[in-house]
Formats: sequence, structure tokens, C-alpha cells
Amino acid sequence: MKFISSRDNPGFKRLRALLDDARMRRTERASIIDGEHLLQAALDADWPIRQLLLREDVLESAVVADVLQRLKNVDPELPVLVMAPALFNALSPVLTPTGMLAEIALPSVLAEDSGAGDVLALAGVQDAGNLGSLLRTAVAAGVTRVWLDAQTTQAWSPKALRAGMGAQFCLAIEEGCDLLPRLTGSSRPVLVTSLGPASVSLYALDLRQPNIWVFGAEGQGVPAVLQALAQHRVRIPMPGKIESLNVGAAAAVCLFEQVRQREVAA
Amino acid sequence: MKFISSRDNPGFKRLRALLDDARMRRTERASIIDGEHLLQAALDADWPIRQLLLREDVLESAVVADVLQRLKNVDPELPVLVMAPALFNALSPVLTPTGMLAEIALPSVLAEDSGAGDVLALAGVQDAGNLGSLLRTAVAAGVTRVWLDAQTTQAWSPKALRAGMGAQFCLAIEEGCDLLPRLTGSSRPVLVTSLGPASVSLYALDLRQPNIWVFGAEGQGVPAVLQALAQHRVRIPMPGKIESLNVGAAAAVCLFEQVRQREVAA
Repeated sequence: MKFISSRDNPGFKRLRALLDDARMRRTERASIIDGEHLLQAALDADWPIRQLLLREDVLESAVVADVLQRLKNVDPELPVLVMAPALFNALSPVLTPTGMLAEIALPSVLAEDSGAGDVLALAGVQDAGNLGSLLRTAVAAGVTRVWLDAQTTQAWSPKALRAGMGAQFCLAIEEGCDLLPRLTGSSRPVLVTSLGPASVSLYALDLRQPNIWVFGAEGQGVPAVLQALAQHRVRIPMPGKIESLNVGAAAAVCLFEQVRQREVAA
Repeated sequence: MKFISSRDNPGFKRLRALLDDARMRRTERASIIDGEHLLQAALDADWPIRQLLLREDVLESAVVADVLQRLKNVDPELPVLVMAPALFNALSPVLTPTGMLAEIALPSVLAEDSGAGDVLALAGVQDAGNLGSLLRTAVAAGVTRVWLDAQTTQAWSPKALRAGMGAQFCLAIEEGCDLLPRLTGSSRPVLVTSLGPASVSLYALDLRQPNIWVFGAEGQGVPAVLQALAQHRVRIPMPGKIESLNVGAAAAVCLFEQVRQREVAA
């Protein structure tokens, strides 16, 4: 264990930058996760953890001891950094800091897309909380691969990781994707939600084969150039007086209709 | 039109309090909506609007002229308050203020529950953004009545109104409800999502009759005492490695499975 107590420590400055700066996370291929739940989720997924950061006053806690034991089983040489409470609290991004942070590695080489599973493709989803809960929904629905375009916020920001509740560790996530060639060359049907008149009801589609689902930003929706590539423009029937759902709700409805059809067919 | 330019103006102070203080909103039976979309939604729903607040530099804008005309058609005596830009911007709660705010009345007497439609009942949903998007999903799915318990955040806060995108104007919302007697005495089936072993798959239920859906806070879920009252504890089948959805996604999946069954039956 190493102890740091000064904001001028280079290790502290680096952690601060990983929390605040998306470019720094990309350059270093690293991010920070906060709290026991995300740490356990990372361990469950055999995710590479680079160092553990502890607030000095939680060293005796049973939860910390448990996590530390799991980590040491995986990597006996794992660096552990202990910080004075004031210093740690200046770092931790949530309102109720648990006293545990970890630096994780971002994925480097992803398993190649075999064309077999479902894909969630997102265009211009800018809210990190929305993105995290979209990823969580995707994992729950059995999706294994995610394509994020360059206008979508980073999946590995502390906020997106928090909202994802561990989803990021269960998905092959590609960022900065050019969706146009991927959707053009796809052997899987491309499905895009749309309110337009040329759309087909979600409940009239056969969704049992693997699909590529494309969702867009709140407001703008999916860009027209991508909509034009879709096999189906999908309309969610809405009996009520509001003709829109937020993107997270729309994706949940579509992906779980797919789950339902496969359950019924099984 | 009345013009104000000082933070010491009592009207300004009252608006500030309506934005910041839930108790003030309850006492005054009023809240503030921000921007053209919510204003048009309120007008579409014939919602009582008490005054319009404009930033001085948008007085010539076509959008403002259109909204103002609609408002004057409803109430020729509607008070219009014009504010110096610096003063207005200190008030407006969003990052890209549109230059238009309005004071709305909170609902006073609600139509009595006839027992005919669906009800969304929420226990301890504390995030205003989550609540707003739950309400939006409810309206889209045709739900007309909402019961919020005392632990749920206010449906009429500026943040919940923003996330609701006008949903609040399409629902009979009762706040501070004691859910226990309501669910005990209900003639409609009470449905609660649950991960427990005694739960039944969402896709095995007949949802064509009107239902009462109960959702709880992230993390804790629905209190055990309410779960015990449910006709069905409902499990959303999840083929993936994450055994949870955020509350907004879970509600969207359940309420739109109900929509699907009614569409298919129709």
C-alpha cells in the first residue's frame, strides 16, 4: 500500500484527469469506477483492474476487506493507493462516496463480430445517464455488441459507468463508429424506430433472428441517411396522447419485444 | 405587459421560490414551466396558465408571438411579465434558456377514479428525471391515472416537468398517496415487478383488463408490504447477464406489453 496526502502528487493529478477528461481516458485507455457494486461487477466479468484507491478511514471495513481479497486473488501485485479522507473526497464523483475507487483498463482488442448476435447501434446519444441505462437494458435483453457513433458520449465516463451498473463489462463496445458502411454492408436486418407514415408496427415484425437496432438522440432521432438504410422503420404503437418516448424507454420496449418473441418461440 | 429589472422585486422573488422550493409550490399550488414545447403542451391540454414571463430580447421573436397569441385567445387578461436578460437568465433553470417561462397552476380537484382505466403507482421514486420519463411512458401507453406515495419526488418540480415533456398535463396525478389502503381495496389486479422465485413471467400474464402497476425506487424496489398485496409478482425475463433494469425501462417493458396484448386482441 502506498499513502498519498497531497493534491500535488502526480498520481492524484492523473486520477483527477481520468475522472474529468474524456481525451485523457482515451489516451490512457483507462477510467475510474466508484463503489462496491461496480467493483464487484468488474471482478465478476474478469475485467482488468489497474489499481485500487481507498479512503484511509475505510481500511478496516468488512466490505473493503472482501473486495481487496478478491482483487489480490486475481493479481497479488495490484497497486493499492490510500488517500487522506479530504483528498479522496475531492476525487470521488458521487455524493455519497463509498471510500473505494478503482482504475480500470478500457477494452483494447474486441472479439470480432461474427454476425451472429444482436447489435445496438446508437447515433448521437449525448446524455451519459441515458447511455448507461441503454447499455444496461441491452445487456438484460441479451444484446452482446454495441456500436456508438462519434457523436455519442463516451461509454467509459464515470457517469455512464455509474448508470450502466456494470453493463459495460458485459458488452463488446466499439466507439467512434462510422455507422453508414456498417449498416450498408450488414447481413442482419437493420431496424430503426420512426414515427413516419412508412413505418410498420413493432408488434407486426418477426424479431426472432439477430437484428441491428439503431436508436438516435432525443429530439433529432436517427439521421435520415441511416433511416434510409433500414429494412424496417419501426413504429411503437402508442394509444396515449404523447407521440414520443425517451430513447431509453423506446429501446427497452423494442429489445424486450424481441425477448418475448424468442421466449414464446423457444 | 409589466417590466421588472431588479432582483428585489417581490414578483421575482416569488418566481425564484417556485423554482427552488417544493413546499412553496405546494402552498401556492403553482409551478414554473420552461420553453416553447412545454408551453404548447400546456395550451394543447387547456391547462391553467397564470402568467407568462419573457426575456426582453425575445419580444420580437415569431415563436413568442405565436405562443402569446394562443395564450391571449384563452385569457385576454393574462399577466405578462418582461424581464431584463440578466434577471431572466438568473431564473431560468435550463442551460439554453428559450426566453419563455410560464407560471402554471397545479391541479386542484381531480376527476374521481371510476375504476375503469389503468393506474401507475410509484413508491419512493426520488429522481425527478426518472419520474418525468415514467410519466411520459405512462401517457404514451394510455395510462390515465397516477398515484405517487409520499416518498416519491414532486411531479411538478421544474426538472420533473422538463423530463415529462408535457405528460403531467395528460394525467390525473395524485401525490402523497397512502398506497396500502388503495391497493388493498382495489377491484383491479395489482401487479408488482419482482425478481423473487414466486414471480410469474410478464409474457405469461393476461393484461387486457385494466391494471394497477406498482413500481419502486431503484435499488430497494417495491416495499414488501405492498408486494404482499399484489395479485401477481411479475418477472421480466432477462436472457442477459444483468438481472436488473432501471425503473423507467422496466415500466416501459411492462406497460407496452399491455399495449401489445390489447392491440393484438383488438
